[in-house]
Amino acid sequence: MKTKRMGAQTVQPERPPVICAAASVVGKKEGDGPLRERFDAVNQDSYFGTKSWEKAESAMLKQCLELACQKADLAPESLDYVLSGDLLNQCAGSAYAMRESGAPYFGLYGACSTMAESLSLAAMLIDGGYADRCAALTSSHFCSAERQYRFPLEYGGVRTPTAQWTVTGSGALIVAADGKGPKVTAVTTGKIVDAGIRDVSNMGAAMAPAAYDTLKAHFADTGRSPDFYDMIVTGDLGQIGHAVVTDFFRRDGVDLRHNYTDCGLLIFDREKQDVHAGGSGCGCSAAVLAGHLMKLLTDGQIRRLLFAATGALMSPTASMQGESIPGICHAVAIEMEGGAT
Amino acid sequence: MKTKRMGAQTVQPERPPVICAAASVVGKKEGDGPLRERFDAVNQDSYFGTKSWEKAESAMLKQCLELACQKADLAPESLDYVLSGDLLNQCAGSAYAMRESGAPYFGLYGACSTMAESLSLAAMLIDGGYADRCAALTSSHFCSAERQYRFPLEYGGVRTPTAQWTVTGSGALIVAADGKGPKVTAVTTGKIVDAGIRDVSNMGAAMAPAAYDTLKAHFADTGRSPDFYDMIVTGDLGQIGHAVVTDFFRRDGVDLRHNYTDCGLLIFDREKQDVHAGGSGCGCSAAVLAGHLMKLLTDGQIRRLLFAATGALMSPTASMQGESIPGICHAVAIEMEGGAT
Repeated sequence: MKTKRMGAQTVQPERPPVICAAASVVGKKEGDGPLRERFDAVNQDSYFGTKSWEKAESAMLKQCLELACQKADLAPESLDYVLSGDLLNQCAGSAYAMRESGAPYFGLYGACSTMAESLSLAAMLIDGGYADRCAALTSSHFCSAERQYRFPLEYGGVRTPTAQWTVTGSGALIVAADGKGPKVTAVTTGKIVDAGIRDVSNMGAAMAPAAYDTLKAHFADTGRSPDFYDMIVTGDLGQIGHAVVTDFFRRDGVDLRHNYTDCGLLIFDREKQDVHAGGSGCGCSAAVLAGHLMKLLTDGQIRRLLFAATGALMSPTASMQGESIPGICHAVAIEMEGGAT
Repeated sequence: MKTKRMGAQTVQPERPPVICAAASVVGKKEGDGPLRERFDAVNQDSYFGTKSWEKAESAMLKQCLELACQKADLAPESLDYVLSGDLLNQCAGSAYAMRESGAPYFGLYGACSTMAESLSLAAMLIDGGYADRCAALTSSHFCSAERQYRFPLEYGGVRTPTAQWTVTGSGALIVAADGKGPKVTAVTTGKIVDAGIRDVSNMGAAMAPAAYDTLKAHFADTGRSPDFYDMIVTGDLGQIGHAVVTDFFRRDGVDLRHNYTDCGLLIFDREKQDVHAGGSGCGCSAAVLAGHLMKLLTDGQIRRLLFAATGALMSPTASMQGESIPGICHAVAIEMEGGAT
């Protein structure tokens, strides 16, 4: 057997799994943004037909999985594993959404890195011979997140310039052993990195050191330079975090300005949509990957993507106790045509 | 390659990974219980030397991983993956505990099923060729759980007879491709099962249908009868849930009375320790497995164990919105000597 490990944090599937279908469902504000045409469904109702924001998040994620399954022409219960998680306490968004899926379920918590975590594990479970078909998915909802993280909300309260806007959105990928579509050719799993940031209105800065750490590990482990990729996209660092990562690499003599962007910058129009530093939330990178980036790959506009979702692993309780914010970032190389190089 | 899938929910490692070290750290009450001699460390201080119960949980889990690593004679940063999660919002117990581990981190949320979920994924990552050494671990703390799930606590508030007592405890396993110790020979991943129970003081009843579902799938997938195992141990069903599972199987004509018990029944003396229906929490099954059951295996008192940790996937918010409690159960077959049959 060919070795699957490439350095300390990266593995390379022997038979790169295929992302054979993707679906994205978002809220109204995301549907007003620059990627409006790239999502499968935009719901104008922030309740998604339910009676609470938490139930709305579950309804959105459930719809997203069903759409992805329809596109892959399979029933949810025929999935070998569903891998999902979200930001809500006890990941209740996912648990209630997947309650009737009828598939074996692995609950994950990677905060906003969940899309990369679920895709990483799905790829390894498939290439490892344990599964033929998995769903990797996640979601966030502006209202359920605001209520949970920032309650009580003060009417007219001012958001700082570094704050980000939690995306109401979800993304689901069907990953399979065979089929047509972009392939997962490398998986770099992040370590927890805590640079001591305590400002919960500056998540971009808190997560950027983790993104830098994982991207650096990916390049070192694989021997690839950033130029190998047509696009390198971090999860939800927004304007601040994106600038920090760019600057960290610049100091190393690596120029990321040509092919590096961030899902939090792509999903909203920062000038018109009043989102301050950009989008955030599990659903940000999930919807951008499952909606926009997958189409770039399948339409042939890019061939090699490095998707590096980022997460802030704090809780409101930890922050109230004076703790700093631990960050994490997982990177997944996704390529059209051909397997591992 | 030999097929690794056995039926709809079960996989069988080709080269069964070895649990080469285990550690358990618990609180005072657990140290007063019948398993007192089976744990590595009992801390008399519910704060574990910190200033909050949440930090205490992280300190306990960190100590537990360090102990397990010492026993396996390896540094935490040499682990290929750490797989961990807990009950705290945003799984902050694990994130802060693993912040300085220096190892690639997969955060999990399986509620009290986390010990089986982390062990399942660790075994597949190793047998799949992605890792040589992983840590699978989890924790719970009575005080951090009470504050989170049942706040405001009323002084003198009465607990119902079906209520369980959240264990202050943690368990960590080092799983490796080679070495000496019990082996993981089969992994059955559970589906979410919701039987409509809404009483958050009766978690045993809420989780029992999931345990029944997963155990039944395990027996069907593997062709093994319950008698194949010296012990079948569910996670933290306590007295009520254990009785429900036993009764469900009895109706199927299957007698589990000889070899079936539950971690929530083992860890406390229900007559003397005022824990009502028994122990619960991620740390319950984790400490009982890493402390007691692993010793039964390594001492040769049992050879074949089916460990089936159970979790209730609700959140307080979902329960307040009138939702029922989704349950899940993951089962892992652990055998001394010999691999898959």
